[in-house]
Amino acid sequence: MWAFLNNEFIDEEKAVLHASDLAIQRGYGVFDFFKVVRSIPVFLDDHLDRFYYSAGKMRLNIGCSREELKNIIRELLERNQATDTGVRMTLTGGYSPDGFQLVKPNLLITQRPFLKPTEEQLTKGIRLVSYEHQRQLPEVKSIDYLMAIWLQPLLKENGADDVLYHQNGSVTECPRSNFFIITEDNKIITPCRNILNGVTRKKLLQVAPTNFVVEERDLSFDEIRRAKEAFITSTTKPILPVSQIDQHTFPAVYDLSKVLRQTLLDLELVK
Amino acid sequence: MWAFLNNEFIDEEKAVLHASDLAIQRGYGVFDFFKVVRSIPVFLDDHLDRFYYSAGKMRLNIGCSREELKNIIRELLERNQATDTGVRMTLTGGYSPDGFQLVKPNLLITQRPFLKPTEEQLTKGIRLVSYEHQRQLPEVKSIDYLMAIWLQPLLKENGADDVLYHQNGSVTECPRSNFFIITEDNKIITPCRNILNGVTRKKLLQVAPTNFVVEERDLSFDEIRRAKEAFITSTTKPILPVSQIDQHTFPAVYDLSKVLRQTLLDLELVK
Repeated sequence: MWAFLNNEFIDEEKAVLHASDLAIQRGYGVFDFFKVVRSIPVFLDDHLDRFYYSAGKMRLNIGCSREELKNIIRELLERNQATDTGVRMTLTGGYSPDGFQLVKPNLLITQRPFLKPTEEQLTKGIRLVSYEHQRQLPEVKSIDYLMAIWLQPLLKENGADDVLYHQNGSVTECPRSNFFIITEDNKIITPCRNILNGVTRKKLLQVAPTNFVVEERDLSFDEIRRAKEAFITSTTKPILPVSQIDQHTFPAVYDLSKVLRQTLLDLELVK
Repeated sequence: MWAFLNNEFIDEEKAVLHASDLAIQRGYGVFDFFKVVRSIPVFLDDHLDRFYYSAGKMRLNIGCSREELKNIIRELLERNQATDTGVRMTLTGGYSPDGFQLVKPNLLITQRPFLKPTEEQLTKGIRLVSYEHQRQLPEVKSIDYLMAIWLQPLLKENGADDVLYHQNGSVTECPRSNFFIITEDNKIITPCRNILNGVTRKKLLQVAPTNFVVEERDLSFDEIRRAKEAFITSTTKPILPVSQIDQHTFPAVYDLSKVLRQTLLDLELVK
């Protein structure tokens, strides 16, 4: 399998970074991840928009133009003869002589199949456990998932599939997905502050207004408990219904989530 | 120069981690850093205490006993013939197949001279700029310094040397040091909640009560403005006087900070 590191294609096994890199020293880096379905890099331009945005916010220079980056991705997929897979672009703080000052970033592009949701998750929904936490620089897709990994035992203890972050009485997002509810009167509500702007979230909000009223605003647990359906969105899922949050269970009817899921799956294959 | 990676001593240039390591993928890892002065690893047992504590909190297995780790450090210093230097022990989440689940950690030990405070910093003190932020898992010495590095332009804009974090009206710490004030009536006050338990802080609090009343508690900006002196502590400094925080300047008399600094420097060389 091929990977790309800075200026060259290399054997994926040789995709290494020296210990002086600021990702290893200081957890400093950004990334983005998109999927390739039937040879189509899904929503590639949106992911590149966000990758350049994250890099800029973190003062990291990607070091190549958008067109150059697209060509590198194209060549990587060709070399690996990959038609259905995931691609991760990672940009780190670079080999800092003093372990603190930003220097020339390292750009690493790797390709790896991604885990699809299970049939059970799709039909029965997933269970969330809430946790009070606010990600730092939430609009940046940084490599900081310290809390998400640290909280894995909490999931196990609660028989949950994922965490739902909240702060000051408002829910925000899951560590790797955005959160939505559908109200009794068919409004779609999703938080819009202190979250990562998910690409799937963005796409959903573009198509949903055809059939739903959409509100992007703060969302309380009270409102969630009154909702008809709840679901999460992410690149790999792209929509999964939520069956339970803490002690609250939703009616096991995911009709609208399913419709939205199919809408998104269709949209992914539009060239 | 030699380094140590997992089970072997290697050329420092070969101290690399594969891109699948959770430090690179998810910013997940812990570390500790101690200095070696005249061949003495300063406060080594305290640093090992904290390293094992951080690792345990983050569910990372160091994979060797304290005695084994001491022997590795001893051999590393001998191989490098290092008498005055810094040693960093880093423990990462390991090469995770799915980029999320914790696996066998990577243990990396590197040696590098550290930057000492300048004469100007010692005589004139340093300037701090305050910023509202709370580090996640503050008592763990994780590799997460995302905010500290991201805030570097703020320092430049404000002509400051470092950041002073605060939250809910209380100051906590600087990104890489602990914060103290000395009141008009010679009390030493330092925050004790939501901070990293610095080894230098701990040592200072052990020796200071001989000559000072010490209070470990929340500390407001109001109290800071009324203080006689302010200073920070860290392994490399080990005490530096603070001349200014935001718009507030302290009287340029650092008599007590200097006494405490000398006490600590003497303590470092006690075998």
